[in-house]
Amino acid sequence: MDFGVIIKTLGKIILFEAAALLPSLFIALYSGQGDFYAFLLSIIIIAAIGGLCLLSKPKKDAINYKEGFAIVGFGWILVTVLGALPFIFAGTFNSFIDAFFEAASGFSTTGATVLNDVEVLPKGILFWRSFTHWLGGMGILVLALALLPAFKTGALQIYKAESPGPTPTKLVPRLGQTAQLLYGIYILFTVVQVVLLFLAGMPLFEACVHTFGTVGTGGFSTKNASIGAYNNVVFEVIIFFFMLVSGTNFTLHYQALHGNFKSLVKDSEFKFYIFVITASITAITLNLWNNIYINILEALRHASFQVVSMITTTGYATTNFDVWPSFSKIILVILMLIGGCSGSTAGGIKQIRMLLLFKYAKREFSKLLHPKAVIPVRLGGKRVPEETLSGVVSFFFIHLIIFLIATLLISFEGMDLVSTVTSVVTALGNVGPGLGMVGPSTNFGHLSAFSKTILSICMIMGRLEIYSILILISPGFWRRSY
Amino acid sequence: MDFGVIIKTLGKIILFEAAALLPSLFIALYSGQGDFYAFLLSIIIIAAIGGLCLLSKPKKDAINYKEGFAIVGFGWILVTVLGALPFIFAGTFNSFIDAFFEAASGFSTTGATVLNDVEVLPKGILFWRSFTHWLGGMGILVLALALLPAFKTGALQIYKAESPGPTPTKLVPRLGQTAQLLYGIYILFTVVQVVLLFLAGMPLFEACVHTFGTVGTGGFSTKNASIGAYNNVVFEVIIFFFMLVSGTNFTLHYQALHGNFKSLVKDSEFKFYIFVITASITAITLNLWNNIYINILEALRHASFQVVSMITTTGYATTNFDVWPSFSKIILVILMLIGGCSGSTAGGIKQIRMLLLFKYAKREFSKLLHPKAVIPVRLGGKRVPEETLSGVVSFFFIHLIIFLIATLLISFEGMDLVSTVTSVVTALGNVGPGLGMVGPSTNFGHLSAFSKTILSICMIMGRLEIYSILILISPGFWRRSY
Repeated sequence: MDFGVIIKTLGKIILFEAAALLPSLFIALYSGQGDFYAFLLSIIIIAAIGGLCLLSKPKKDAINYKEGFAIVGFGWILVTVLGALPFIFAGTFNSFIDAFFEAASGFSTTGATVLNDVEVLPKGILFWRSFTHWLGGMGILVLALALLPAFKTGALQIYKAESPGPTPTKLVPRLGQTAQLLYGIYILFTVVQVVLLFLAGMPLFEACVHTFGTVGTGGFSTKNASIGAYNNVVFEVIIFFFMLVSGTNFTLHYQALHGNFKSLVKDSEFKFYIFVITASITAITLNLWNNIYINILEALRHASFQVVSMITTTGYATTNFDVWPSFSKIILVILMLIGGCSGSTAGGIKQIRMLLLFKYAKREFSKLLHPKAVIPVRLGGKRVPEETLSGVVSFFFIHLIIFLIATLLISFEGMDLVSTVTSVVTALGNVGPGLGMVGPSTNFGHLSAFSKTILSICMIMGRLEIYSILILISPGFWRRSY
Repeated sequence: MDFGVIIKTLGKIILFEAAALLPSLFIALYSGQGDFYAFLLSIIIIAAIGGLCLLSKPKKDAINYKEGFAIVGFGWILVTVLGALPFIFAGTFNSFIDAFFEAASGFSTTGATVLNDVEVLPKGILFWRSFTHWLGGMGILVLALALLPAFKTGALQIYKAESPGPTPTKLVPRLGQTAQLLYGIYILFTVVQVVLLFLAGMPLFEACVHTFGTVGTGGFSTKNASIGAYNNVVFEVIIFFFMLVSGTNFTLHYQALHGNFKSLVKDSEFKFYIFVITASITAITLNLWNNIYINILEALRHASFQVVSMITTTGYATTNFDVWPSFSKIILVILMLIGGCSGSTAGGIKQIRMLLLFKYAKREFSKLLHPKAVIPVRLGGKRVPEETLSGVVSFFFIHLIIFLIATLLISFEGMDLVSTVTSVVTALGNVGPGLGMVGPSTNFGHLSAFSKTILSICMIMGRLEIYSILILISPGFWRRSY
């Protein structure tokens, strides 16, 4: 491994983060709530570290796949640590771990908070907190790919690592251009949602914050009671729609924007996603009706919002679903685990992986009746390569192992089983709220520094689909021979 | 499918069950607690049904694999329904569903009960209840294979379906002889345990009942407080040892009894099983020490018994582990899911499947560093065929789907999440107790008839490793073309 090229690339990304802090700096200056110097100091420190990294002398120009993994893994950890600085300097948190948790929750688009009261925060901090969702949603390294031509070599490795799903697609042959197109669509959605929320009556600043939380499928809000604080159906409909859109593969949006709507309707993953959403909304609506809500429309309203918020791993809530019946809660937890589509900003295992696992299991089951038949797994009429299937299977299983290890570690906290398990589900799936002591009406502030660290690592691992972080602690990765 | 041969074979199995009721009849007669006529009537009815089935005219002599599945699936359902008759005639239960649940729990070696008080039951009923564990543990159809030479054709299919694990082994080329040898070892263990418990001071009748529950990894007891009622360390050590033995592959016992102890030490699954047990006992002992028990030996005593009881899916308890800290409870639930070794009388997913899944995931992870390498999965030095691996993967995933569906159905019961989820874990894994409202200090009597039915199906599905039941409801199975 050439550490020179790794450090130099990390330097660029760090400088990039310094630049990304500028909007928050201006908002802090404009709103005059005392957080200006926190941002100024953060930017100076981050820019200085980034500049120092640039002095590193690479032995070569290209990045191989191991260096690609190192850049993504270390890049995300560094960006998160440095992104926590404004929270510390502004006095938002007393401990570094709390600030790190909040930054990890932001960049990973989880949206879980350790704050009891977000409504007292200065605007600059509120903006930065949610802007990390926006940066992390589409990928901060993908953004760097889009803007920095020097990233050309080895960039595919970085793009792959940060793009969720088993087989990331390139929209156009050149990767930098693909990244530009993806961010173009992302910015378009962002602008449209801000305008719509503003026109519907939400103050501009809050519209920006909630849009970042929506399109990045993050979930940070300016309100302690999340979207429920507004009790406004129009806001809910707008956010519902953009959560749905952000949980969809952006390749489909690119094609739809070019007039090719067919690809949307034909896409197996998208159809499965819509099927799961529709089935879940129906089941939960019927479960809540006459049980929690007398009015079926009220049941439908809250069922729809919560289902889409959980499946897209956004984490916004219009009500405290922790008081819902077990049936509804189990469905929500399953949705948190599955997550959105590949190539979207959503977290979780991803719809396509679940669909492929279903088809895989179905094929093996068919073999009981036709022991000698060779049956390929097909998706949208195309044969799925066996390597893709085994990759999906092992991803699922490694995901499960990480989940179990994290759950055992969090269980030392001494919370009840449901809170323990769902705190890990929500962190690893980048959702936000869990159930019980980490439910939508509470927060993660009461956890120990140990548990907060574990959950922060889970959030970053979840965002990068595990491998980019796991590989950094694998002995084989550090052996000189490769 | 030739229904003639299916019905005729089922007839033999049903007659077999009538004969298996004779010991309970004699005990009922001898103890004179009023349950004699219940057994007499049951035997007459069951023998009559079995005799009627024998009148069926098969078109052929051989059993193909589809008929094999039908015999196992329908055979188990029939045996369970008919095995519930003595409970009904003796007035043990007022409802058929309760009697069916208790019989399903018995034959499947689960050990979950719907009875509030087992100590008031007549001896004949107590004996039959636990004897179903003994019959179901090694397999009632395997017993039929051992004793009925007419079973020769198509018997492998039946043996496969009833023997847990991905690749059942034959001890000797002839299957009937394999079944005889397996039952020989099983009877040996049974006799030794009864004698040991009796010598240690347990009354003979109770020694028999607890031995059936141990070697069958069932869990029914003569006491409401299970083994904890005795508070006797010697009893616990004997039961601990035989649970451990019954959760081990009987092929290894066969070889060990022939002096080949090496095969035990060399067996990858056995080593993994012992590793998981040792690690779990250590972790739970340390977690309980100074927390639940002041004395570390007391912590070790209860940790050891509960760990082996859960991993072998026996379900005996020496204490109410529902009050243990979350860390210990999570480990116990994971052990319930994993279960014992293949070819043992234990339930669960089985150690070997977990080991293979670990190795599978590890291989795919290695591919990140060596993308072009072709790495076979090895077990004990031998290459594992890819078909075995894909079979294990799909078993795991189908198991998960069944688990989720059952959990959603049980959630209508309105219990808390932990009770809901662990009731399914314990039923599907053939364990016995769950946590919370279905924990070791309570029972399943308070559930609705609907939930009891679902859990009964789960218990039978779990015992037969799903496919033999699932295939009966698959449309492809009923198509005429095969």
